Amino acid sequence: MSELILHPDRLFPAEESVRGIARRLYAEVKDLPIVSPHGHTDPSWFADNQPFDSAADLLIKPDHYVFRMLYSLGVPLESLGVPTVDGTEVETDGRKIWQTFAKHYTAFRGTPSRMWLDHVFKDVFGFEKALSAATADDYYDGINAALQTPEFLPRALFDRFKIEWLATTESPLNDLRHHQKIRESGWKGNVITAYRPDPVVDPDFEGFASNVAYLGKITGEDTSNWEGYLAALRNRREYFKAHGATSTDHGHPTAVTADLSRPEIETLFAKALAGKCSAAEAELFRGQILTEMAGMSLEDGLVMQIHPGSFRNHNPKLFARYGRDKGADIPSQTEYVNALKPLLDKYGNEPNLTIILFTLDETVYSRELAPLAGHYPALKLGPSWWFHDSPEGMRRFREQVTETAGFYNTVGFNDDTRAFLSIPARHDVARRMDCGFLAKLVSEHRLQEDEAREVAIDLTYNLVKQAYKLD
Amino acid sequence: MSELILHPDRLFPAEESVRGIARRLYAEVKDLPIVSPHGHTDPSWFADNQPFDSAADLLIKPDHYVFRMLYSLGVPLESLGVPTVDGTEVETDGRKIWQTFAKHYTAFRGTPSRMWLDHVFKDVFGFEKALSAATADDYYDGINAALQTPEFLPRALFDRFKIEWLATTESPLNDLRHHQKIRESGWKGNVITAYRPDPVVDPDFEGFASNVAYLGKITGEDTSNWEGYLAALRNRREYFKAHGATSTDHGHPTAVTADLSRPEIETLFAKALAGKCSAAEAELFRGQILTEMAGMSLEDGLVMQIHPGSFRNHNPKLFARYGRDKGADIPSQTEYVNALKPLLDKYGNEPNLTIILFTLDETVYSRELAPLAGHYPALKLGPSWWFHDSPEGMRRFREQVTETAGFYNTVGFNDDTRAFLSIPARHDVARRMDCGFLAKLVSEHRLQEDEAREVAIDLTYNLVKQAYKLD
Amino acid sequence: MSELILHPDRLFPAEESVRGIARRLYAEVKDLPIVSPHGHTDPSWFADNQPFDSAADLLIKPDHYVFRMLYSLGVPLESLGVPTVDGTEVETDGRKIWQTFAKHYTAFRGTPSRMWLDHVFKDVFGFEKALSAATADDYYDGINAALQTPEFLPRALFDRFKIEWLATTESPLNDLRHHQKIRESGWKGNVITAYRPDPVVDPDFEGFASNVAYLGKITGEDTSNWEGYLAALRNRREYFKAHGATSTDHGHPTAVTADLSRPEIETLFAKALAGKCSAAEAELFRGQILTEMAGMSLEDGLVMQIHPGSFRNHNPKLFARYGRDKGADIPSQTEYVNALKPLLDKYGNEPNLTIILFTLDETVYSRELAPLAGHYPALKLGPSWWFHDSPEGMRRFREQVTETAGFYNTVGFNDDTRAFLSIPARHDVARRMDCGFLAKLVSEHRLQEDEAREVAIDLTYNLVKQAYKLD
Repeated sequence: MSELILHPDRLFPAEESVRGIARRLYAEVKDLPIVSPHGHTDPSWFADNQPFDSAADLLIKPDHYVFRMLYSLGVPLESLGVPTVDGTEVETDGRKIWQTFAKHYTAFRGTPSRMWLDHVFKDVFGFEKALSAATADDYYDGINAALQTPEFLPRALFDRFKIEWLATTESPLNDLRHHQKIRESGWKGNVITAYRPDPVVDPDFEGFASNVAYLGKITGEDTSNWEGYLAALRNRREYFKAHGATSTDHGHPTAVTADLSRPEIETLFAKALAGKCSAAEAELFRGQILTEMAGMSLEDGLVMQIHPGSFRNHNPKLFARYGRDKGADIPSQTEYVNALKPLLDKYGNEPNLTIILFTLDETVYSRELAPLAGHYPALKLGPSWWFHDSPEGMRRFREQVTETAGFYNTVGFNDDTRAFLSIPARHDVARRMDCGFLAKLVSEHRLQEDEAREVAIDLTYNLVKQAYKLD
Repeated sequence: MSELILHPDRLFPAEESVRGIARRLYAEVKDLPIVSPHGHTDPSWFADNQPFDSAADLLIKPDHYVFRMLYSLGVPLESLGVPTVDGTEVETDGRKIWQTFAKHYTAFRGTPSRMWLDHVFKDVFGFEKALSAATADDYYDGINAALQTPEFLPRALFDRFKIEWLATTESPLNDLRHHQKIRESGWKGNVITAYRPDPVVDPDFEGFASNVAYLGKITGEDTSNWEGYLAALRNRREYFKAHGATSTDHGHPTAVTADLSRPEIETLFAKALAGKCSAAEAELFRGQILTEMAGMSLEDGLVMQIHPGSFRNHNPKLFARYGRDKGADIPSQTEYVNALKPLLDKYGNEPNLTIILFTLDETVYSRELAPLAGHYPALKLGPSWWFHDSPEGMRRFREQVTETAGFYNTVGFNDDTRAFLSIPARHDVARRMDCGFLAKLVSEHRLQEDEAREVAIDLTYNLVKQAYKLD
Repeated sequence: MSELILHPDRLFPAEESVRGIARRLYAEVKDLPIVSPHGHTDPSWFADNQPFDSAADLLIKPDHYVFRMLYSLGVPLESLGVPTVDGTEVETDGRKIWQTFAKHYTAFRGTPSRMWLDHVFKDVFGFEKALSAATADDYYDGINAALQTPEFLPRALFDRFKIEWLATTESPLNDLRHHQKIRESGWKGNVITAYRPDPVVDPDFEGFASNVAYLGKITGEDTSNWEGYLAALRNRREYFKAHGATSTDHGHPTAVTADLSRPEIETLFAKALAGKCSAAEAELFRGQILTEMAGMSLEDGLVMQIHPGSFRNHNPKLFARYGRDKGADIPSQTEYVNALKPLLDKYGNEPNLTIILFTLDETVYSRELAPLAGHYPALKLGPSWWFHDSPEGMRRFREQVTETAGFYNTVGFNDDTRAFLSIPARHDVARRMDCGFLAKLVSEHRLQEDEAREVAIDLTYNLVKQAYKLD
């Protein structure tokens, strides 16, 4: 059985003089608090502070990074306990699921999942041997036992992870009861929400019209007309702000924005409510919403995040059997220069507006995003996202963005995860990669080491707090 | 005259500790047999086992990598002996052709052709001085003399190169007589065919209708109707399988697939036979064929390869004068996420189907191909292809694919060459680059060295045999 | 206050053995004369040889690399003295402008602007401390004082910079009086013009029709008909040649070319003059012009440069307030393989024609540009351009282009700048990056060091002189 090693120099460039610089820079940032302004953890964990479920429930079933890879290599999702929509039976024996996972753990060689998992195994749970078929049972038993101890309760882990801010993501229809409970509990952890309006602004979302009607009900606005609908959206933004939100988030298929005339948008809204939008009209409606949201952000100060470019639920058979978020979201080419123009024409020059752009299409880093963010006061660049939340993905991001947009048009790291235990691992990877990138600049005399130290701290801590207004 | 040096550390990263790891990994794989599952060598070489022609005939005239580069720098193709379609005279003096080539050999600095050729010169022919105008005659005479010796007969080289499997590529209309002769000869070399149906499935192919008619003739099927046509295609797949084929190959302008209704496809087929398809209809027909072929692969087990994205014969004057395959095939942007959807909707979840995707458009590695292959059980990724069959091309492939798809959704190396003598050189480059990539992961503590050793062997030998069912 | 350090090893790879090779290669090229075949300096500087204006006027107000970055971070352009179209007041106190710039100098960390500026500060002006708020006044006073000395007059700097050739860029409507004055002055500096016909060939250019009429006036041709228009364009090419021009330059939104029938083009030309072209027709007209220009280049030997892919004046509010060239030009996706085909079908095989292609879209390096230039005799690749005129941009260019197109289908470096003082800095960055790239090839035994030395000299000096016919 191999040792499980988290080498102190991991991810640093191999050349000794560069590595030395990276080590020194990393020493300055490794213990800084974690600021996690965008993610998908479950607020009930921190509200209720109950023990997490078993190893399989915690680390496999909900992690589409993990089960999509096994699925791609022929492992049935049933054998991993992924629940079916119609309740058809799947594996329920957590130990068997864990063994299947362990047997195929080599599939993750060279992937970030492997690094995150090993980090969790060693640093959170204290394992000394690598995961394999031979150690599967030890792991399963060890993790399950640990999860029952007070040290592994959600709030204890939150403190142990030195998380200073953690944002979850909720729909405007959510009553934020868990966040309410957290606030009322007297616990000091900064768990805040973020406003993700897709269910009430995307005509293609399941139940859009009834969602909009419900939005009207909870806000007391008449959401059957455009004016009332906007008022309701605005109303919920205030509600979210009152529960700590500092940002909104928008996950559209494309980056299209629009700035339509009032009659055009009213017609479009009526069609959307009636379920009669064509694909192009739905796109246009979502585009109009982005511009409206930018306008509201200028009023209420919420930071706006745009996450475009995912072809959701690409695999219809999988979707029918297992539902959403099962690893069948595939990126596609995404255009920003023309797509964002209507919004930018209206609000791009506002220095008090912050719009953070993300992409799954790396070809736009140097061609579109860096030039846009290196010009428009309202634009900042979010970190490398999703499939690119990885060592090589981060390296390409810095290499392709920095020369045109600099460091100060970027906003630090997002972990964007529902895998709570992996949060320290993910932030650690980002810190190491940033320090490695800066060390290279220093070693090539493109930056002085004292400057690099300042930048490392900014990238780790200051920029995210400024950009997301966390203070 | 400079020494001709094949340095034992070539292509390994320069940093000494990384290079040390790369050396150790390479030592494990350098002597493994060559498995070449996709290429364009001529089976008659192995059937007849006659001496190769002269240096110019063997190494220059048929190698479009070589003559396109010289042509781009102003060297007329006539002076390189490239034959014209209408028989207009070209240089026939092999020595003069070779001298022209030698004089311009500096053009290849920094290219893979240069590495392959030097490898052939030193390792296959034993030259000690670098090729230049000064050594041109020595080379010409030396190569020609060697080619007349028994050691340089095709089968002798096959054995010397330690080739375990070599696939050629043939049209369904080919009678496979050379493969037949090889099998009947008692020689033990595994030379097999692959099924490349472009001439009978692409309405834009020269002579499509008569090709389809001939297909009917040799199979005894009525290929004037869709059902009979499919039966004939299926029939030839069986014939190819009987001659060792384990794969099919499809070289389309795009990755478009289709899943049309029966009436639609029958109408389209009739138009195709009548030569009346528009460009879009021809595309749709080819797309339907890909889906049909995937279905047949599920039945008969042939592995399916898709090679899209080349704009063939981009230069009409060159095409008129010299014909096909003269270096004027230019890649163009290629989309996979929407294009493959009809096929994937139908067959993407089949764990017993293997579809290997290639691309000439590197922008899709991280954006489309890795996420697709990292999800769909039926998909695997072919190695970096053609213009990207090069050290930097291979490095980008691993860097952009591995984090999302892992190593085990890839299939090892393809040399894809008609330049038989360069096969060991090409496989050696791939092995070195993979070991260098793995060494970097090890040196950055992203992988343990014992794991990297396993992966290196898998990438070199095991994955290709599994993916292409060679055993 | 930090030291201002221009480290002798800057930009070289950190690994000591590679760095050693890079140093040796760079020693061969660092003192070679500067050949600058494409740029935007003002010929009146060299004609009149008057002192440059103050630090702010010279280094900030005209440099959109500088002020766009500060603007993106919320610094108003007014505070940087950027003049408004309508004369609305902006900051005029050069010292205050300089202080604002100095205070935000950290914004440029990691950017090429930072490297160029530091090079100018240290090497041209002799500063020993880094620029910061604390040193702002010393810089401002020191630069202004220096600019009044004879050593800082334009011709003195030209000689000190060892510039062998410097091309400016002018419209065909320009009378080239400054170039005339330079020639008549007896000064030996090779300052030549280049023919940039956008104002008279782009129907979307402000004042196109009146520009064309004026073109008729100065050439004595009837530019109201196509034949006369072509004659006038040809006439001005001769005029530019007589003033030293060896090249033309074409800055189109896309790479589209066309080869229309005579009636089609005459109809289109009439529409263009009447201001009635649709966007698509204007595009087609520009495309026809590119093909016409290629034909004229074949006749008169002027080298043709194509710079496509910039979305000019993306920010309408900024454009209305400050006018053109204020940093709001954003690249967009650019296609070459289909776009260039009409021109290439006609002229691509001409070995005596030189067309130099540039791009702002790096995705085409390996996919389109290198395969095209690695085949067509008429095509060469310009260096990494604009946002990619940077260390990482240059590295990606070489890594993605060399393996397919080699070194000898490229044309050395362009500084493309109006910032005269930065010319040595920019060429120095290119030389260092090329030497670093070559050193890596040598260290990985992909090239011998004596070959690399030849290539380094070719990339620095010989290729640009050959490609631009400067001798």
